Parts: sequence; structure tokens; C-alpha cells
Amino acid sequence: MASTLEKLAEHVGGKVFGTANVMIDSVATLTNAKQGQISFLTNPLYRSQLSTTNASAVIVEEFVQDAEKVNQLVVKNPHAAYAKITQILYPQQAIQAGIDAKACVDKHSQVDKSASIGPNVIIEEGAVIGQGVCIKANSFIGRNAHIGDNTIVYPNVSIMHGVRIGQRCIIYPSAVIGADGFGHAYQETGWLKIPQVGTVIVGDDVEVGSGTCIDRGAIEDTIIEDGVKLDNQIQIAHNVRIGRNSLLAGGAGVSGSSTVGENCLLGGRAGIAGHLNIADNVVVTGMSLVTKSIEQAGSYSSGIPAEPTRTWRRYVGRFKRLEGLFKRVTECEKLIKEQKD
Amino acid sequence: MASTLEKLAEHVGGKVFGTANVMIDSVATLTNAKQGQISFLTNPLYRSQLSTTNASAVIVEEFVQDAEKVNQLVVKNPHAAYAKITQILYPQQAIQAGIDAKACVDKHSQVDKSASIGPNVIIEEGAVIGQGVCIKANSFIGRNAHIGDNTIVYPNVSIMHGVRIGQRCIIYPSAVIGADGFGHAYQETGWLKIPQVGTVIVGDDVEVGSGTCIDRGAIEDTIIEDGVKLDNQIQIAHNVRIGRNSLLAGGAGVSGSSTVGENCLLGGRAGIAGHLNIADNVVVTGMSLVTKSIEQAGSYSSGIPAEPTRTWRRYVGRFKRLEGLFKRVTECEKLIKEQKD
Amino acid sequence: MASTLEKLAEHVGGKVFGTANVMIDSVATLTNAKQGQISFLTNPLYRSQLSTTNASAVIVEEFVQDAEKVNQLVVKNPHAAYAKITQILYPQQAIQAGIDAKACVDKHSQVDKSASIGPNVIIEEGAVIGQGVCIKANSFIGRNAHIGDNTIVYPNVSIMHGVRIGQRCIIYPSAVIGADGFGHAYQETGWLKIPQVGTVIVGDDVEVGSGTCIDRGAIEDTIIEDGVKLDNQIQIAHNVRIGRNSLLAGGAGVSGSSTVGENCLLGGRAGIAGHLNIADNVVVTGMSLVTKSIEQAGSYSSGIPAEPTRTWRRYVGRFKRLEGLFKRVTECEKLIKEQKD
Repeated sequence: MASTLEKLAEHVGGKVFGTANVMIDSVATLTNAKQGQISFLTNPLYRSQLSTTNASAVIVEEFVQDAEKVNQLVVKNPHAAYAKITQILYPQQAIQAGIDAKACVDKHSQVDKSASIGPNVIIEEGAVIGQGVCIKANSFIGRNAHIGDNTIVYPNVSIMHGVRIGQRCIIYPSAVIGADGFGHAYQETGWLKIPQVGTVIVGDDVEVGSGTCIDRGAIEDTIIEDGVKLDNQIQIAHNVRIGRNSLLAGGAGVSGSSTVGENCLLGGRAGIAGHLNIADNVVVTGMSLVTKSIEQAGSYSSGIPAEPTRTWRRYVGRFKRLEGLFKRVTECEKLIKEQKD
Repeated sequence: MASTLEKLAEHVGGKVFGTANVMIDSVATLTNAKQGQISFLTNPLYRSQLSTTNASAVIVEEFVQDAEKVNQLVVKNPHAAYAKITQILYPQQAIQAGIDAKACVDKHSQVDKSASIGPNVIIEEGAVIGQGVCIKANSFIGRNAHIGDNTIVYPNVSIMHGVRIGQRCIIYPSAVIGADGFGHAYQETGWLKIPQVGTVIVGDDVEVGSGTCIDRGAIEDTIIEDGVKLDNQIQIAHNVRIGRNSLLAGGAGVSGSSTVGENCLLGGRAGIAGHLNIADNVVVTGMSLVTKSIEQAGSYSSGIPAEPTRTWRRYVGRFKRLEGLFKRVTECEKLIKEQKD
Repeated sequence: MASTLEKLAEHVGGKVFGTANVMIDSVATLTNAKQGQISFLTNPLYRSQLSTTNASAVIVEEFVQDAEKVNQLVVKNPHAAYAKITQILYPQQAIQAGIDAKACVDKHSQVDKSASIGPNVIIEEGAVIGQGVCIKANSFIGRNAHIGDNTIVYPNVSIMHGVRIGQRCIIYPSAVIGADGFGHAYQETGWLKIPQVGTVIVGDDVEVGSGTCIDRGAIEDTIIEDGVKLDNQIQIAHNVRIGRNSLLAGGAGVSGSSTVGENCLLGGRAGIAGHLNIADNVVVTGMSLVTKSIEQAGSYSSGIPAEPTRTWRRYVGRFKRLEGLFKRVTECEKLIKEQKD
């Protein structure tokens, strides 16, 4: 939905340097932008591109003097302003209220009149679907599950019985919320299934990525607090709690009964072992292995970056011979001491 | 389904210390239990909680003298007893026999009368669905697949042609069993697909977690033996065999043509390279990388736990300078020897 | 579909040593082959099996003198010949053109008459489905998505709005193509969603494994070039480009805005961090962590293989004490120098 730069500036509380009434209809990168497009600059490294971009406007943090030909929209937080402007230029398709003729909605469920229920959606008995909810084709909502207002559920999602999802959440395709946690008791004849009698509680404004799995609690509930963003293929095991506004990148995993604090960032494929507590404001870099609780805010890492395989093999060889090296150094120290004496 | 403590004790072969006829209706943790609830103690560290819990009974391995106020159910294996008692207190919903009007069942398939086939389930020609099987909404059963008695298939599962699933299995949402293995022959113009002509054979009492994928064999079959428990998002490549009662935690992966023995435990995200043999009774800890066959029972690990990023970078720097350190030590040894002579 | 060895030889441009008119009906391993079956030998280690196999023919690179009793089909590339022969012996089921009565096909979409659309498939407005396409049950094709000729889409797949898939692709169950990339702008009140306005462009002859996710671009498109093969549970983040004929094994992940060159091989669970460039012809071994761009063709690795847990713990202990060892060596050097002077 096209808009003048001026109106966009008002919307994000920014100031225009240049032509305020230029029309903006879409977003683009600095490099590829054409007339009518807006771009943004967050990394000062790319500042020189301001002189060469064909964008009709660029969102910046500070007015850039030596780029007078490009209209600049100065805001405190260019990234957030870009997000808000993109939301205006690309409005979400209005959802069409109503239940598709091919949906299977149990008569003992409650579906708000303003909700949109796609073809082949299953809504079991006792489920409650809030206002403005959109459930796309082929998704499954189990018995007594609650879906909060204005939440979007994409196709092929499974939300199991009793799960509660908050408002304004986005659940991407093939996500699974509320399947049984992995609980088995060992006995001589093999593993005995432990019924998982908790459920999953998802707060407001949560995103659950494609293929992400959040298991129901063993006794109490698995909890995803407000504002948490889960990327694709994440595993949240039973009894886990993820604190407010934490963000987990693709493939991160949190094992059973662990707690992740608020405003944490877990990098891609980072793994948190079971029964740990991770404090607020902790960053764990990609593919790190966390096996102890983290009590202090800050950044934590493990994993050694790749090298040419030949070099790497030499590294590993030396790593395994470290014990010998320690002994050799001890022997050197002893001999030196002897010579000294 | 509530029960007296006495009846529960009979069911698990345990002995009651305290009031045998107290009613138990649900389970809870020691900390949060209320009247009518039963809890369990497996970790002696939490023994002191026996004096403060409000649980109506606690399952223990030995009678705890100094906790006389709480009813105790003494059993050999508290974890297994807890599993059995939970199964009684929370009976599974009875399945409703019959084929939903919105299921697509091929006329050349066989579906037992006692099976429950949900809406939008697809059952292709030649498929055989056993007694008491429950297939939930939107799942797909390919041609000539067999589903053994009393197996549960949750929503959005894909079981491909010719796959055989045993009895009393549980297949969680979005699992995929029997898609093609990853087989391609290289030729100058690019990769050539190798048809995967084996299938997948899954034994009895197997669980397949949400999003877990088990590929069909290239020539012979991929085999999951009885009692194997696979957590979420596991990858079992073509031609793999997983031995009886082995348990794989979330995101573990076994590459093509490898064999995992019986009673093994693979931790979360552990990875087994291709064409290996892992003996019986092997434990591989989480996120370990296994690149050689393991011939002896025991526990195996790799992966270094995370540290503060600053510390970690110093570690990595030193690791890469190990070659120099080896040389320096050799030089020291030489000089010491020279001085000695 | 059975064939004489002679006809198979013609098809793959090979030469028969032995009985040319023997009938071949299926493939098998050297060890388990029976009469009527063909096997192949690529690894010279297994050469001795040629004397003992019961196969009616074996595909080899060179005629093996001392195995006269077995018919040999000599070809330049046995693996590729095996692939082509298997394709003949096991022809794909012919697809049945037509739209299943239970599919939901929008009237403003275009579905070629030769396409096969299974039950419960959703095809939204503006979607275009090419000739000979087969879309299996319960899959979702979003608005304006394009599916190229002769592509197969297996069950429970989600292909989101505007995605373009090339010709002769294979999309396995529970794959998700074109869900939103993971883009959020931070502001004090929490994360703000950045609409993802690019899409996903998939070339010809691409395979997308079960549970694999390819996110749509943030501004421009995510691109998978011709001939790329993606195994199961792979994560391709927004704005990524994967070059022609690259092959990614199970669980590999490529983070946002990274580029992988042509003819690359990423091992299972290998992870590429964001905003990197990986050159053509790069191999990254399984579970490696790549945090810097790779400019030269070749093989790259990280990750240290598992050892018995007790041994591993000692390794880790020494690794963490390396700083002390460096200091001790420096002290030795100093003392030796002092003694020398």
C-alpha cells in the first residue's frame, strides 16, 4: 500500500531530509532499489552506498551530509522503523471470517464468528478459537485447546489437546505443540511409557517456526512466555520454561526441565542440556553445547570453527597428545630444577 | 480415574506405610502436590521434601523413617511404579471405532472394524490397518503399508508405501516414515537419483517422535527393532538398523547403513556417521560426533561445554597454537639435554 | 520391469562379459543377491564377493578375470549405471491425471490437465500447476505459487504463497518452502516482526527432503539453483543461495544471507553461519561449524570425534589448562636461557 515518505515518517516518529511528498510503494536493498522504493542503512560500512542508490528514500540513524541527492528519513532505530514501514507497505491479506465447508469443527467447540477456519482444519471438542484467529488448511486443533485472539496458524500444524496459545501468535507450518514429552521408566523388560499429564502454555506475541516441536509437560506445564520467538526446527522438551522476549535461532534445543531466562538469544543449533537454569540476558552462540547452569548475563560459546580438513586433523592429533605434552613439560621443569640445584 | 493407595500398591506390587485407603486422584511434584495427589522420590537429594510435601502419598524405594506424616508406597523401582500408577490415574481416551466420513479409504485396503480412522486420513490401496489402531486426522498411509494392532498414529503423519509398523507403537505428529533415502550417483551432468527400493520395518512398542524421519532402504530395509524409543526430530537414514530397546534423544541422527546395538542411549543431537557399527549397551552423550565404530559397551563423548565467549576464544586461540607449543617443548628438551651433556 | 542384461547394457552404454540374454528383474546387494538379480561393485575391497555372489550379473568398472562364473556388465561409472538400471527395473508408478474429488482447487488457479492432484490437497488462487505434476494427499500450495512440470510433491508438504518450484523436482513429506524468514527488529518493548517480502525460487531437478525448511527472503529471494539435493531436516534461512548441483546431507543448516557455491557437499548437521560466502567445490564434513567465508575449493572440518567419556573428560580438562601449560613452557625457556648465559 503506497504512501508518501512524509506519512511514513509520521508513522515511525522520524524526520525527513529531502522531498517529503515522494511516493513510496515498496522496500529494497540499497544496491537494487529503484524509484519508489525505500531502503535502510544500519551498518555504517555501507554508508557510501547512499551516494549511488536509486532508492527514493533511505532510513538512517543520522542525516548523512554527503549524500544530498537521496531523501533520508532519520529515526532513532532504523531497523525497527524499517519493520514498521514494511508492515504498512505490505499489509497482511485480510482474513476472511468463516468456517470453510471442508473444515471439521466439533459441535462442542467454540469458534468466534470473526475467525477464519480453512479447508480440512480439524477442531476437536472443547477447543476455543478466539477473535480474528486464522487457521489455515490441514491444521489440527486438539480437544480443549485454546487459540488466543488474532493468532495465525499456518497449514499442517498440530496443536494437541489442552494446549493454550496466547494472542497475536504466529505458528508456522508443520510445527507441533503439545505432543507427549519423552518420558520412559526403565524396567528389565524394556521402557515403560510415563504418561505426560502436563500441557503447553504459550504466551502472547510468540512465534513458533516451521517444524518446531514443543512437548507437553510430564507433570506440570511447558511454558513459553510472552514475546518469545522460536525459529524453525527447534526442540523444546517437556517442563521447559522459556522467558519473555527470548529469541532462539534455527535448530536450537532445550532439554527437559531446563529454564531459559528473559531476553536470551540462543544461536542456531545451540543445545542446552536438561535440568539447567540459564539466567536472563544470556547469549549462547551457534552450535554451542551448554551442560551447566549459567548464572550471569553475558555471552557464552563453545565449538571450534572449521579449518581445512588436513589442518584440522593435525589439530585433533595434537589435542589427543596433550597428556604427553603435559608430562614432557613436567619433566623439563624437573630437569631444569636439577640443573639449577 | 481415582483409586485408593492400597489398590495402586497392589497394582505395582508395593507396600503401603501409612493410611492405605486414602484416595489418590492425580500426580504432582513433591513441591506442588496437594491432598489427593501422589508424588515420587527417586533422587535422595530431595528426601527432605518428604517432611514438607502436601502429597497424600509418595512412592519411595525405602521407607523413610523421619517422614512419618506422609503415606509412603515402597516399591523396588519407584520410576516404573510412578509410570504404572500414572497410566491408571490418567487412562487414555477410549478410541472410537469406525471410519470418519471425511477419511479417504481405498476400497482395496483392509481396515479392522475396531480401528478408528480420523477425518481426512488417507489410506491407499493394499494398506492393512490392524485391530484397535487409531489414526488421527490428516495422516497419510501409503499403498501396501501395514499398521499393527493398537498402534496410534497422531495427526499429519506420513507413512509411505510398503512400510510395516508393529503393534502398540506411537507415531507422533509430522513424523515421516519411509520417504526415499538420500541416494544419488554422481555423473558429469549432475546427480542421478538412485531409486530406493527397500522399505522401513518398525517393530512392536516403538515410539517415533514428532518430526522424526526414518528413510526407506536403498536396496534392503531400514529396521527399527522392538521397544526402540525415538524422540523428536531424529534422522534415521537409509539401511540403518536400531537395536531392541535403544533410546535416542531429540535430534539424534544415524547416517546411512550404520547399525546401533540393543539398549543403547544416544543423547540429544548426537550424530553417528555412516557405515559404522555401534555395539550393544553403548551410551553416547549429547551432541557427540561418532566417526568410528564402537565395539565395546560403555559411555562415549565429545564436544566441549560452553564457557564465557571471551574465555572460549582464548581457548581456541591456544588450541590453534598447539603445534608451536609442541615445537617449543621439543626445543626445550634439546637444550636441556645439551646443557646436561 | 524385467529386462535382459543385454538391453540394460545398451541402456547404460556398457559391455557384457558372460551371458547377455540372462533375465534381470531386480537389484540386490552382492551378499544377498539371488538368481535374476543384479548387483554392483564400486569398492575394490568387496571384489572377492564376486566369486561367491549368487547375482545373475554385477555392474563393474573393469572386467574381473578371476570371477568368471558371474556375468559382468562393464561400465565407466558403475554407480550411475546402477542408478539408471534401477530406474528401469523399478519404474515409478504412473501418475493418474486428474483432480481428486476431495481436493480444494481455487477456481482462479491453473492446473494442467495432465497433473494429478490428491485428496485434501489445497491449491489457492493464482497458483499454477504444470504438466505431469503429482501432488499427493494433504499438501498445501499457496496463492500464486508455481509448480514446474513433472514435479512430485509428497503428502503433508506446505508450499507457501508466491514460491516457484522448477521442473522434475521432488518435495518430500512435511517439507516447508516459503514460510517467513526469521526477521525481528529489537525495540524496548520486545521484538517487532519484519515482514518477509521476498519469496523462494527453486530450480529444476531439485530435491527437498522430509521436514526440510526453506524460508522466504526478507527483501529479495532465497534461491536454490538447479540440481541441488537437500536431504531431510535441513534449514535454509532467508536470503540464502545454494549453487547448482550442491548436495546437503541431513540436518545441515545455512544461516541467513549466506551463499553456498556450486558442487559443494555439506555433511550431516554441518552449520554455516550467516552472511558468509562458500566457494564452489567446497566439502564441509559432518557437524562442522563454519563461521568464516571459505574462498578456496577443498575440504573443511571441525568437531573432534567421540572417545570413551572418561578419556574425553581428561582431554577437556587438559584443554582448559592449556593457558597454564603455555606459561610453564615460557618459564622453562626463560630458565634454560638463564642457565645458558
